[in-house]
Amino acid sequence: MKVAWAGSPEAFEVCDRMAKLVANDPVFEKFSKPMLGRKELFKNTLRKAAHAWKLFNDLHLTEEEAKWLRHYIDEPNYTDLHWEMFVPALEGQCTEEQKKKWLPLAKTMQIIGTYAQTELGHGSNVQGLETTATFDRQTEEFVIHSPTLTSSKWWPGGLAKVATHAIVYARLIIDGHFHGVNGFIVQIRSLEDHSPLPGITVGDIGMKFGHGTYNTMDNGVAKFDHVRIPRDQMLMRVSQVTKEGKYVKSNVPRQVGYATMVSVRQTIVADASKALSRAVCIATRYSAVRRQFGSRNGGPETQVIDYKTQQNRLFPLLASAFAFRFASNWLKSLYTDLKQRLQVNDFSTLPEAHACTAGLKSLTTAATAEGIEECRKLCGGHGYLISSGLPELFAFYVPACTYEGENVVMLLQVARFLVKTVSDLGNKQPVGTAAYLGRVAPLTQKNCVVQTAEDWLNPGAIVEAFEARAARMAASCCQRLAEYKSPEEGFAELSADLVEASLAHCQVIVVSTFIRRLQQDIPGKGVKQALEVLCYVYALFLLHKHQGDFLATGYLTPKQASLANDQLRTLYSKVRPNAIALVDSFNHTDHYLSSVLGCYDGNVYPKLYEAAMKDPLNDSDIPDGIRQYVQPILKQKLHSAKL
Amino acid sequence: MKVAWAGSPEAFEVCDRMAKLVANDPVFEKFSKPMLGRKELFKNTLRKAAHAWKLFNDLHLTEEEAKWLRHYIDEPNYTDLHWEMFVPALEGQCTEEQKKKWLPLAKTMQIIGTYAQTELGHGSNVQGLETTATFDRQTEEFVIHSPTLTSSKWWPGGLAKVATHAIVYARLIIDGHFHGVNGFIVQIRSLEDHSPLPGITVGDIGMKFGHGTYNTMDNGVAKFDHVRIPRDQMLMRVSQVTKEGKYVKSNVPRQVGYATMVSVRQTIVADASKALSRAVCIATRYSAVRRQFGSRNGGPETQVIDYKTQQNRLFPLLASAFAFRFASNWLKSLYTDLKQRLQVNDFSTLPEAHACTAGLKSLTTAATAEGIEECRKLCGGHGYLISSGLPELFAFYVPACTYEGENVVMLLQVARFLVKTVSDLGNKQPVGTAAYLGRVAPLTQKNCVVQTAEDWLNPGAIVEAFEARAARMAASCCQRLAEYKSPEEGFAELSADLVEASLAHCQVIVVSTFIRRLQQDIPGKGVKQALEVLCYVYALFLLHKHQGDFLATGYLTPKQASLANDQLRTLYSKVRPNAIALVDSFNHTDHYLSSVLGCYDGNVYPKLYEAAMKDPLNDSDIPDGIRQYVQPILKQKLHSAKL
Repeated sequence: MKVAWAGSPEAFEVCDRMAKLVANDPVFEKFSKPMLGRKELFKNTLRKAAHAWKLFNDLHLTEEEAKWLRHYIDEPNYTDLHWEMFVPALEGQCTEEQKKKWLPLAKTMQIIGTYAQTELGHGSNVQGLETTATFDRQTEEFVIHSPTLTSSKWWPGGLAKVATHAIVYARLIIDGHFHGVNGFIVQIRSLEDHSPLPGITVGDIGMKFGHGTYNTMDNGVAKFDHVRIPRDQMLMRVSQVTKEGKYVKSNVPRQVGYATMVSVRQTIVADASKALSRAVCIATRYSAVRRQFGSRNGGPETQVIDYKTQQNRLFPLLASAFAFRFASNWLKSLYTDLKQRLQVNDFSTLPEAHACTAGLKSLTTAATAEGIEECRKLCGGHGYLISSGLPELFAFYVPACTYEGENVVMLLQVARFLVKTVSDLGNKQPVGTAAYLGRVAPLTQKNCVVQTAEDWLNPGAIVEAFEARAARMAASCCQRLAEYKSPEEGFAELSADLVEASLAHCQVIVVSTFIRRLQQDIPGKGVKQALEVLCYVYALFLLHKHQGDFLATGYLTPKQASLANDQLRTLYSKVRPNAIALVDSFNHTDHYLSSVLGCYDGNVYPKLYEAAMKDPLNDSDIPDGIRQYVQPILKQKLHSAKL
Repeated sequence: MKVAWAGSPEAFEVCDRMAKLVANDPVFEKFSKPMLGRKELFKNTLRKAAHAWKLFNDLHLTEEEAKWLRHYIDEPNYTDLHWEMFVPALEGQCTEEQKKKWLPLAKTMQIIGTYAQTELGHGSNVQGLETTATFDRQTEEFVIHSPTLTSSKWWPGGLAKVATHAIVYARLIIDGHFHGVNGFIVQIRSLEDHSPLPGITVGDIGMKFGHGTYNTMDNGVAKFDHVRIPRDQMLMRVSQVTKEGKYVKSNVPRQVGYATMVSVRQTIVADASKALSRAVCIATRYSAVRRQFGSRNGGPETQVIDYKTQQNRLFPLLASAFAFRFASNWLKSLYTDLKQRLQVNDFSTLPEAHACTAGLKSLTTAATAEGIEECRKLCGGHGYLISSGLPELFAFYVPACTYEGENVVMLLQVARFLVKTVSDLGNKQPVGTAAYLGRVAPLTQKNCVVQTAEDWLNPGAIVEAFEARAARMAASCCQRLAEYKSPEEGFAELSADLVEASLAHCQVIVVSTFIRRLQQDIPGKGVKQALEVLCYVYALFLLHKHQGDFLATGYLTPKQASLANDQLRTLYSKVRPNAIALVDSFNHTDHYLSSVLGCYDGNVYPKLYEAAMKDPLNDSDIPDGIRQYVQPILKQKLHSAKL
């Protein structure tokens, strides 16, 4: 099962090795994080990042290994932006000549870069950015300028205190004409003494949700006051400005940028499965240790994992972690396929691939954020302690719902794709994950044939149910859109319904991917059987949760929906004996989990006690403040006390 | 509307006065909290508590005013436990003689108390507590003892460092016989020098979710090693131990304790509406300032509050804040009625009142916790900043889902009540909030008569729909329970479905209470109309969210459910023009909200910037760590650097 989770024996080996490397290195200790002030926290993270870079060089790690090393250090810092945004942007948007200049500097970290797109007043709508880059023909320079407070760059990680360079997105202006938003390489700090360059006001945007989480990172704000950069620091692969000030598009299609977006979102889906697996691992282990009620004849109380209410909240999340894992693995292959197609100017699958990744980004991050908090609640009161690891995991994870495409905006993009696909059915057969929409007519006529709870243990029945519900919802939206004066007005008015239709479509993808994965060979005794149970749990849980859709579209009868729920209860009993083994298969180290509730040895209570004793407040029986502010009350002398 | 929200002109006046008193007093400043370490945070809170107690005495505040003062200080501390748990427990569980001794000490704070029930290994199941209180006939003492690590008292606020006394719950043992769990007054610390008394090991349980939140409070752990207390420190109103070691029940019925529980849970429901109203106020104001997409001809972008997707997430939460407010006001009258009945030994309404408060506690806290996080997401990226106020509000609020009755355990208690009520229908007519279950037969036969979207604007249609759905779900559960060998086995197996039936029942209560409130006189121009719109939004949003139940039980047709959704969209357009005025009616001061996104003047961006600049990391352009850990990387001298 460990291999099935990791994806391959090789992948397992690399992850396992990197996880242990981090877990056994005292520099990467995490426990004290919540007790550090902002400055100490930041400094501590800089130290870890330097140590990691040293390890990378000393151990001659591959890029893959380095990525996992950063992952297991589990602490956001400037190198994330440098490696995951700055370097890929250089690779994807520079000309060959530019690459020759910038990539060696970046790859040896002689410069440290960040990615400055979002502004204080502008997020999702990139075309609304206010920063300007005005071409000065005299000097062959661009003048980067922040005309308003809201045009300040806001959020880029590493920008506040570390980055020497940033890719700054700005509205290109030549002779008063606007030529869209383009990227520019702007030096932020002196490579000598690290001070900000003239004309650049830069700082930290302040603390964020949680203790450690993103507070280890110096997310920054930057204002530019007519900062000049040479003409060749515009990212010029797709379009460039000539010496003469002419804006010229190259023969590289703009769409190549989409491949990067697909790649980033694939990573986000993979991260969702990892984050959810951490939370589920903690909650499952703790649920097997914790006992409550149900003692008979003075014997021990019942393990809370044996309660159906606990199983009904926990096991679907366990199943979701696997579902998202397989979805992300499959997205990787989609990305490879797309990249190959784009290289030969085949854009035919692009809209479908784009909608699919946008949708899965939204579905998996929303479910993971909710799932982590649910796992925290499943740990009862102790889940509220920082030492449970869950509050920090939640606070760390939630921005995934907002960054790289806000989740509702993503589902609206999927909705546009669905509406277009359904409207074009006469002319164009949909492909890939949207292929089932080509069968919207039969899917609308045919109803579910399930007659017993057992009948639901059938991949065909499951897939058809999800496809029929999604196709009917999409078709119904299209019909209703037609009743409005303009498509835009209809789209705005029905947007909440369109979002629901999009979610139904995304669920088709995740459920089908899980099922297709199980149709492949899966080695290991009982592994496939255990995964099949989880697959049905995932699908039938969703079916129950959204039974309103299934019933409203008329595909299911109430009786059939109720049978699905009966089957789901039976499946929980099949998950129960494997639950601990399943979460062990994630192969999470105690260091990575950093949870006293989720340790491998299950020794929860002594660990909770030990963690508590380390709180700074326990340095003294009578901490500072008691003599000054409590004793005068007790001794009725408050009137004369100095407060 | 401000008066409608506050409940009465008098209530408005007191709240307004106390809120301003706190907002204008520099001692109660909150902004710096997230930047303080644990010890400074704790000390700062002790100072605020002392200052508040001084104000109470100097200004001769009433208890009601003092309660609001503590509320607006908005910082958990030991006085919460003292006033809200310790003093009421003394009042409710002491004999008259005991009260004479202890209450004057507690009310003048010559002693500071806490409430020690929960143990490290035992939460919801009070009967499972392990701490023992063994009667020693020789000395007429109880010996309080923690026999195991898991029996350590864990969580009591104020216990770790402040409280001088605690009410400790323990298993009473006389001559080796167990006499149930009872409460005992145990002195924890010396009144002279504040050091813990011999035999008592006490400390802080460590940091909790969020920065300020409950980290201002010293939630504690205590272990007792054969600690002796006099016999008269057992709480003896309901039962006592005589000098001779006889366990005697008094003529005070045990059930009086339930009145306290109803009172505490009423407060929790009121707090839910307050917390949700804060989040909604911030998100609504920010949504009116924030603009994104939709710019036409270079004009400003669209206010995000104008998007239907935003309205569909935000307005139901605005409506919920009002719904919970009216539910809590009504619960107050339920409590008054119950208290009067219990005084004359009338227990007839107790099960119904108990189920009703347990259920509303669960419904409102779960919806509020989710709602706050939803509001945070509705503020996009900036909602992730501590300065938005929302992360801290969430972290502060979520334990309400767990304490004072874990939410799922609460719904299972409601389920037991529902099952009993339906099973007894032949013999006993249900009363109060369960009265509609007496009409389960007609509610099962009759179907909804709605034919147009307009038809849904009818209180009768709404109430009947919610009652029919809840009654049918309860009846169906009862039928299916009968198929199991034993009721207990069936209850365990169907518990997830029972929880859903309970939620449906609780929604009947909240919806009906909202509607009944609107049938009363509500002064103010347009106030009643605006509330009517919100009431329909609340009900129809729930109906859409749970349409699976409404369709599965067969009360609604898909067409009728769809008409409800159409009406909901129309209602959003009616909320929109009033949205800002509605959140202004909460009368929240900027101090109380402590959010740069939610300030009354809407001056969001300058405030965001100003707050950012106060971060300690901005004390210097080149903070500690850069020279040591970043420059060696840039200058390629890492190999010789000391890390």
